[in-house]
Amino acid sequence: MNTTSVIAVRRWAAWLRMIAVVLLVSACAGPHADSHYAALPSWNDGPSRQAIVEFVQAVTDPASPDFVAPEQRIAVFDNDGTLWSEQPVYFQILFALDRIKEMAPEHPEWARRQPFKAAIEGDKARLAKSGQAGLMKIVGVTHTNMSVDDFTQSVSDWAATARHPRFNQRYIDMTYAPMRELLSYLRDKGFKTYIVSGGEVEFMRAWAPAVYGIPPEQIIGTTFVTTFEDRNGVPVLWRQGKLDFNDDGPAKPVAIQRYIGQRPILAFGNSDGDLQMLQWTAAGEGRRFAGLVHHTDAGREWAYDRDSKVGRLDKALDEAQRQNWTVVDMQSEWRRVYSFEPLQ
Amino acid sequence: MNTTSVIAVRRWAAWLRMIAVVLLVSACAGPHADSHYAALPSWNDGPSRQAIVEFVQAVTDPASPDFVAPEQRIAVFDNDGTLWSEQPVYFQILFALDRIKEMAPEHPEWARRQPFKAAIEGDKARLAKSGQAGLMKIVGVTHTNMSVDDFTQSVSDWAATARHPRFNQRYIDMTYAPMRELLSYLRDKGFKTYIVSGGEVEFMRAWAPAVYGIPPEQIIGTTFVTTFEDRNGVPVLWRQGKLDFNDDGPAKPVAIQRYIGQRPILAFGNSDGDLQMLQWTAAGEGRRFAGLVHHTDAGREWAYDRDSKVGRLDKALDEAQRQNWTVVDMQSEWRRVYSFEPLQ
Repeated sequence: MNTTSVIAVRRWAAWLRMIAVVLLVSACAGPHADSHYAALPSWNDGPSRQAIVEFVQAVTDPASPDFVAPEQRIAVFDNDGTLWSEQPVYFQILFALDRIKEMAPEHPEWARRQPFKAAIEGDKARLAKSGQAGLMKIVGVTHTNMSVDDFTQSVSDWAATARHPRFNQRYIDMTYAPMRELLSYLRDKGFKTYIVSGGEVEFMRAWAPAVYGIPPEQIIGTTFVTTFEDRNGVPVLWRQGKLDFNDDGPAKPVAIQRYIGQRPILAFGNSDGDLQMLQWTAAGEGRRFAGLVHHTDAGREWAYDRDSKVGRLDKALDEAQRQNWTVVDMQSEWRRVYSFEPLQ
Repeated sequence: MNTTSVIAVRRWAAWLRMIAVVLLVSACAGPHADSHYAALPSWNDGPSRQAIVEFVQAVTDPASPDFVAPEQRIAVFDNDGTLWSEQPVYFQILFALDRIKEMAPEHPEWARRQPFKAAIEGDKARLAKSGQAGLMKIVGVTHTNMSVDDFTQSVSDWAATARHPRFNQRYIDMTYAPMRELLSYLRDKGFKTYIVSGGEVEFMRAWAPAVYGIPPEQIIGTTFVTTFEDRNGVPVLWRQGKLDFNDDGPAKPVAIQRYIGQRPILAFGNSDGDLQMLQWTAAGEGRRFAGLVHHTDAGREWAYDRDSKVGRLDKALDEAQRQNWTVVDMQSEWRRVYSFEPLQ
């Protein structure tokens, strides 16, 4: 071996040693709060971000008395009002109204029949008059009596193009940047993130995996009766015009048990429909996190709580105050609401 | 640097190079069939093992036209008769009969009331006479009107100790070694393995995660109506005495869509109750695998198919022959059935 070779080998050995040291240092580094906060840039340095980071550090540090094994790090999130907006009305309803207009040419009889006529004409007053029964008709014809594949396609097409009237942004861009950061942060820390929503499950599955990074099997929602049918020799899953399971309120912990089979250690919601999910999560043994998104920002989003028809937050707000749950003040704690806003 | 140091550095560098080469070789090694077969030691070199390995190679090799991305590698398995035995009757029924005896001291009235009296006395003829209605009563009192936690505890206690009358082995040791190898093999190849069974979901979740390595959220089964209740200020999930969803036959593909939200690429069953799950899986685009365990081994297990009351395999066997599905001949293709047998 000549001198040049020896030097080359030495350099290579030194380089390898350096890499080994870097790997060792990064592997041994403790949970520094800084790196946790860095994962949540759209959150101000407020009490909610601090509570989240303290919780995550406590349950993921093997030396902590509150340590939770990765397979038990289950986190559940409501969707409407918790991960994306829900005003002036649930976006799934706006999808149904858009679909009615799209389907109208194939249904000339709708021009004379309510509530379809009102939906086609965008007559909100007349629509409101048709009430719950009218709404159910509109949801029925846009969501059922079709195959799962066809329904999914109709939602995908809508999600790719439809825009919210107030912001002129796609609905799928009206997800909350701070909450999407939270989902990623939790997954980086070994959590399995789930949606547990009153929204219809296939409606969410059509766009939520790409938008939130949550796979279809971790999306739980309201379901319609579905049947397995043979159509001209081809097996098809057919969505019947009958509600199967309304995933709201006390049904949420039931759905969590049915689909996940274990109690979450973290739950986030924003309305009274999430109360029991939060109670069920918080009542588990060991350290738990229960959080509410409080809509306090009429400028950047909407401001509503106890008197709202959509996403009413009343009983759950009282319970949060009693139980010392984390209540996120959207206006003061979020540096931005949507990703299309710059970070302030 | 003296000569000894130079030699030491050289040796170290050589050693590091060797490790690098080993890592490189193992990373670049193509999918050799040998390593695949080595993962399935309880299978003989028969057509079923070959079909399984060929399928797995085809969908996991990035250069293959049949390549499937890991997040779509969904594999579903029936449980009774597919992953563990189901004779002389489903083990869940044997659990219920065992529980009746255990609960009897708290229910002196059962000594005079059928079908409980017959269950306590082990009077099979009288039990059979009580029919489906009698069986439902026995399942009802042992499975419902209790919290999910209490039910899970009762199953765990039973699973840890109860033994099968014929083999004097614990029921959880009467799982099929070849199928447990198959589950591990698939997971090693990036598959997500699910149980989709007519068995009650919490009955399976009490022992299946430890036995099969399948987490609770990947166990799908029959469910009872469950309610969220406040009992003395403590939230509880309560199992009501009413069937919610019977996960059998055409309900299996419905459950797969509801819980998983995507179509499996591999399905394994053993009876007509699995027919639609296999049809649904096989009818998807791209390469698919549909398999049946055929109970042909009266000596080591049981032999039954078209005329069996438990786990009847008739229509699905015809369909398997028509569609060229894989039918595992237990007697000739499995080197052992249970793990407690030596490898032959």
